[in-house]
Amino acid sequence: MDTVTSAIVSKMNAFHPDEKALNLAKLGISDFLAVTVAVIEEYSFDEGWLALKSLNKYKTEQEIALILGYAGHALDFDDYHPNMRGHPSTVVLPALFASCMKAELDTIDDKQFLSAYCFGIEIAGLLGLAVMPWQYETGFHATSMLGVVAATAALCFFHNTDAIITAKALGIAATQSSGLRAQFGSAVKPLHAGLAAKNAVFAFELAKTDLFGHKENIIPALITTTTNGKGNLSVFDSPQSDLQIVKPGLEFKPFPTCAGTHSAALCAKWLRADLIIRYGHIDKAITAIDKIEVSFPKGADIAASIVSPKDGIEARFSLEFVIAAMLLKNELYLADFSSHLNPTIVSLANKVKRKVDLTVPEDREDPTKRFHHIKVYLNSAEVIEGRCDRQSVLQLANEPLNKWIACLASDKVLAKNWFALCQFRQPGTIGRIVAMLCTKIVDA
Amino acid sequence: MDTVTSAIVSKMNAFHPDEKALNLAKLGISDFLAVTVAVIEEYSFDEGWLALKSLNKYKTEQEIALILGYAGHALDFDDYHPNMRGHPSTVVLPALFASCMKAELDTIDDKQFLSAYCFGIEIAGLLGLAVMPWQYETGFHATSMLGVVAATAALCFFHNTDAIITAKALGIAATQSSGLRAQFGSAVKPLHAGLAAKNAVFAFELAKTDLFGHKENIIPALITTTTNGKGNLSVFDSPQSDLQIVKPGLEFKPFPTCAGTHSAALCAKWLRADLIIRYGHIDKAITAIDKIEVSFPKGADIAASIVSPKDGIEARFSLEFVIAAMLLKNELYLADFSSHLNPTIVSLANKVKRKVDLTVPEDREDPTKRFHHIKVYLNSAEVIEGRCDRQSVLQLANEPLNKWIACLASDKVLAKNWFALCQFRQPGTIGRIVAMLCTKIVDA
Repeated sequence: MDTVTSAIVSKMNAFHPDEKALNLAKLGISDFLAVTVAVIEEYSFDEGWLALKSLNKYKTEQEIALILGYAGHALDFDDYHPNMRGHPSTVVLPALFASCMKAELDTIDDKQFLSAYCFGIEIAGLLGLAVMPWQYETGFHATSMLGVVAATAALCFFHNTDAIITAKALGIAATQSSGLRAQFGSAVKPLHAGLAAKNAVFAFELAKTDLFGHKENIIPALITTTTNGKGNLSVFDSPQSDLQIVKPGLEFKPFPTCAGTHSAALCAKWLRADLIIRYGHIDKAITAIDKIEVSFPKGADIAASIVSPKDGIEARFSLEFVIAAMLLKNELYLADFSSHLNPTIVSLANKVKRKVDLTVPEDREDPTKRFHHIKVYLNSAEVIEGRCDRQSVLQLANEPLNKWIACLASDKVLAKNWFALCQFRQPGTIGRIVAMLCTKIVDA
Repeated sequence: MDTVTSAIVSKMNAFHPDEKALNLAKLGISDFLAVTVAVIEEYSFDEGWLALKSLNKYKTEQEIALILGYAGHALDFDDYHPNMRGHPSTVVLPALFASCMKAELDTIDDKQFLSAYCFGIEIAGLLGLAVMPWQYETGFHATSMLGVVAATAALCFFHNTDAIITAKALGIAATQSSGLRAQFGSAVKPLHAGLAAKNAVFAFELAKTDLFGHKENIIPALITTTTNGKGNLSVFDSPQSDLQIVKPGLEFKPFPTCAGTHSAALCAKWLRADLIIRYGHIDKAITAIDKIEVSFPKGADIAASIVSPKDGIEARFSLEFVIAAMLLKNELYLADFSSHLNPTIVSLANKVKRKVDLTVPEDREDPTKRFHHIKVYLNSAEVIEGRCDRQSVLQLANEPLNKWIACLASDKVLAKNWFALCQFRQPGTIGRIVAMLCTKIVDA
């Protein structure tokens, strides 16, 4: 067996995540489910969800993985892993949940499931280190390209397959690796996550049959072929001190908008508190605003490029709209980014102007130093201002219940029920989660 | 719309293959079906067919496309297109047949189907010109990488979709393009063809829904991303004087073995005729053979590399076994390459020795000049010899009935029935072919 495939197989046999890792996995499940349930319960209207539901009517494990993977990524509100440079949970978890749908639900071992998820994140992170930045620069989408292999590894771990089947499954997964960055900005981007989850389930199913697939040199070929030969195969050799789910860990998005708007959003939230102290009520403060200026390093608004959004999806990528929404509502609600635009927010957004700060280095030179500086000019000629950077956003306390409430805003009972389930207070939690997902998907 | 996507859409609207092209399409269908039926009727035992049959039990259009695509390529006996550097029919036809399975069979227009098939070959050939040799050298498998787009184009033509749906479908197909050459030599190679056909059906189905996919810049991204930027996007601009199905056209394999053995096989057939003239009966001649020598340019035996095959699949890639089988039987029968090895053939194969001809240029310098030169050394000290090159093999008269008889050897009645159907003597032929395929696949 080649060194990469055999390293993955050995790693699988010796993989025992500790309590810290398992708790992070629980957080990851809660975060993934919050955004997924928002789509499948149709709190957030989504054409892609309706399309996939109608096309996939047999509800095979592959179809369920496709649908869950799409739903998990449709809002682009799911977790991100810096080493993978993509969204691992929305491929790994759909494949794992799908493979449980037809199991005896009360026999599913929670720890085995959580460990398999950790293993999927492990492989996603290591593959990312092996192929980045070359694969991404070449034009491939990491979430699906690496996700399909990571999810297959997680399935093998969960079902405790032997080395031969694992290696064969990884080879079938790797040869299905696909997804072009050119589809970013369309619903085919989240579709990539669903397809990768579906293909992982297929790779796992097929590996258990007598069909002959190579058991070596396929993952190395994937790494080499998609990086123009620059990939680093030795990543898998070196022992890691931390698991990928612990360090650098999953980043959970606090707001249901483009990550490039997040420090502006947090800054606006701070300024809103100032305004209320000053005016007693936000409505009074809003009427007192003359104009708003947001400044940032040159190039820092490339992702959040939309100035005048036409719909909720575009609004996610608009600094102006995000700042206005936060000032008005103290929260970014999914509903404000998935439906017709609220005219009050649009009106305030029209007062926001961008300004590139030419006194600081360009964003490309050090994106970790990205910041937003907001100045609110009041009719009284006073100015209230604040500044927030990416590090502050990353340090936001991740409060999982808030994610549920943000995603299911109109149904706090449902949000609290799901949140409670995701605490894993009792054994059999995964079985109960699967049962709840089943109700929505299998009947859909 | 980008120039490549819009060129495909324009080409589709103006595509009217003439009688010559349509007749070549009929030949292509006959050739594809012969090898496919051999697998699905289980004349040739195949573990992959049994596996796919058991996993795909709902017989959706996607599942049927997967199964047919795999079956068409499992024997590696299906047609090849030089510009594509791959096997186009085993992706395009499975997608088209699958999309007919649930139609009213007597409403299927034969000419529309044949034209759609020609259009699929057209796009496969042009994409090949755009990406070769870079995509292949990078490590990708052309049959699936390009086949998924070609088959999607054929589906759009067949169903006469508008420009918007066509462009969206092509974009969903292109972003699913996958398949690593590293899987060559395993059953995952034919699986690639099936997966491409399946993904084409999915791309077509999804394009008709409201799910938002980009309508431009996806095919150019595929060409650029998978060729390290060397792909030639302008291929689609220039007007072509011939259709790809006419020139260079599909190459139909005369023998169910690796193409690298074909000139050796034909040469052995010629020598067999000489031996019979000399000895009256082949059995007498065989006992008179002392040893056999096969010579060729340096490197010409890389594909046919197996000297002592362990099973029928390996025997396909053995010059020694192929020469012996042809000398003994005057034909290469599928059964001799898909079951336990015939000891009489093995015994004669042991008398064959390879010899590199160092007096001619290496194979890599000009593969079109590849030849095999066979010398049969007789006990009488006489030598009978012959020489055959790739051009002679290409000039073999393609007799479609022979392909059917080769594939279904033990059932000449079935072979003749299928062959008769593939003459398209009556309207409604495609409907009848689909009905016959349905019987085998849907019941499988």
